[in-house]
Amino acid sequence: MTTLYGSMHSRANRCAWMLKELGIDFHHESTNFLDGSTHSPEFLQINPNGRIPALEDQGFTLFESLAINLYLAKKAGGELAPQNLQEDAFMMQWTIWAITEIEKPLLLASANNLLFAPESRNVEEFNLAVKKLSRPWDVLNKHLENKEYILGDRFSAADLNVAAVMTLVPTANIDISAWPNMQAWLHKCLERPAADDWKHVNFTIPRPDTHLGMLAMFV
Amino acid sequence: MTTLYGSMHSRANRCAWMLKELGIDFHHESTNFLDGSTHSPEFLQINPNGRIPALEDQGFTLFESLAINLYLAKKAGGELAPQNLQEDAFMMQWTIWAITEIEKPLLLASANNLLFAPESRNVEEFNLAVKKLSRPWDVLNKHLENKEYILGDRFSAADLNVAAVMTLVPTANIDISAWPNMQAWLHKCLERPAADDWKHVNFTIPRPDTHLGMLAMFV
Repeated sequence: MTTLYGSMHSRANRCAWMLKELGIDFHHESTNFLDGSTHSPEFLQINPNGRIPALEDQGFTLFESLAINLYLAKKAGGELAPQNLQEDAFMMQWTIWAITEIEKPLLLASANNLLFAPESRNVEEFNLAVKKLSRPWDVLNKHLENKEYILGDRFSAADLNVAAVMTLVPTANIDISAWPNMQAWLHKCLERPAADDWKHVNFTIPRPDTHLGMLAMFV
Repeated sequence: MTTLYGSMHSRANRCAWMLKELGIDFHHESTNFLDGSTHSPEFLQINPNGRIPALEDQGFTLFESLAINLYLAKKAGGELAPQNLQEDAFMMQWTIWAITEIEKPLLLASANNLLFAPESRNVEEFNLAVKKLSRPWDVLNKHLENKEYILGDRFSAADLNVAAVMTLVPTANIDISAWPNMQAWLHKCLERPAADDWKHVNFTIPRPDTHLGMLAMFV
């Protein structure tokens, strides 16, 4: 049996996307941090970090959403999986790149465009975040100039992982029309039927009261 | 030919460690951002992000230091490489975990313990960073309770990547004696002869003037 732990309002929706792309039947436990269930003794046996998502696949447990996705794709084989060592390397490269270049500044941009209450949004922080994002987004936009997908002409785990990091773009109404290749690619990825769960994500973040609190949110 | 691009004062030392562990002869280009060489047209062909390190391996180019290391280990085979799909998944999991849980708070702790000039260090920021680090460090310390290395009894790419993210612990004199298993493991990893380059890293960071600047440094 394959069990995915984590409310679909969390990054668990990234793994649900992969499971659905692969046609894997899975049991879903909507563990979440609001009711403390991510820190129950039972769940800490699954993920000692007390974070969601986590995967249990016939007794094998794994955490980190994007690592789970690469594992699932490779285990299933097929088009989403790497076909050789170089594709495997590219999938790791783009996955890690999305985490290090996009995830945090996109959260800051999203907080100041939608997730914080209107009166506590800060345009300087928003502009700073978009400025940081423009660097990796220029790279991805150029990379996609003559390609349908990140590895070329087929949708793979590299697209799924990078696009899954970018679901806040439509959720928080971030304008990416300055990066047309990337915009078209993101739309194509996020409109796949298997990707559906991200659309139901709906949450707000209270703005921390202090500068130290803001720093704490992002380190 | 295998070429590693990037000054050894940068994260290129992570890849030099892997190359030396594997006994791979490589050419080293000490590309760095101080003289603008990371943004030369030639280098942008290697890494369009204008960042170091980058690898060129017989015409195949790759960026993101920890993805480069997993690629090199897998290509070489042997003890550092995953022996099966589950080990491959664990190597991705712990690599991504080190980036998402450790890298940024460790930089904040290090900045306020050593890298910022003494008069611009902030003890509240240091304490905040250590508090954040205590969570993943508790996890790693417990994971290593009855194990020599992350995967069990052999040193692998998982250890190399996680330890490579933690070189700032000794560099910036961060006290980790509260996590004795982790401390012993880190010492064992970083004292390997192939790991030598991190010891020569010596740099300071000017503290940003504003709260916005501090936030920009960490998102």
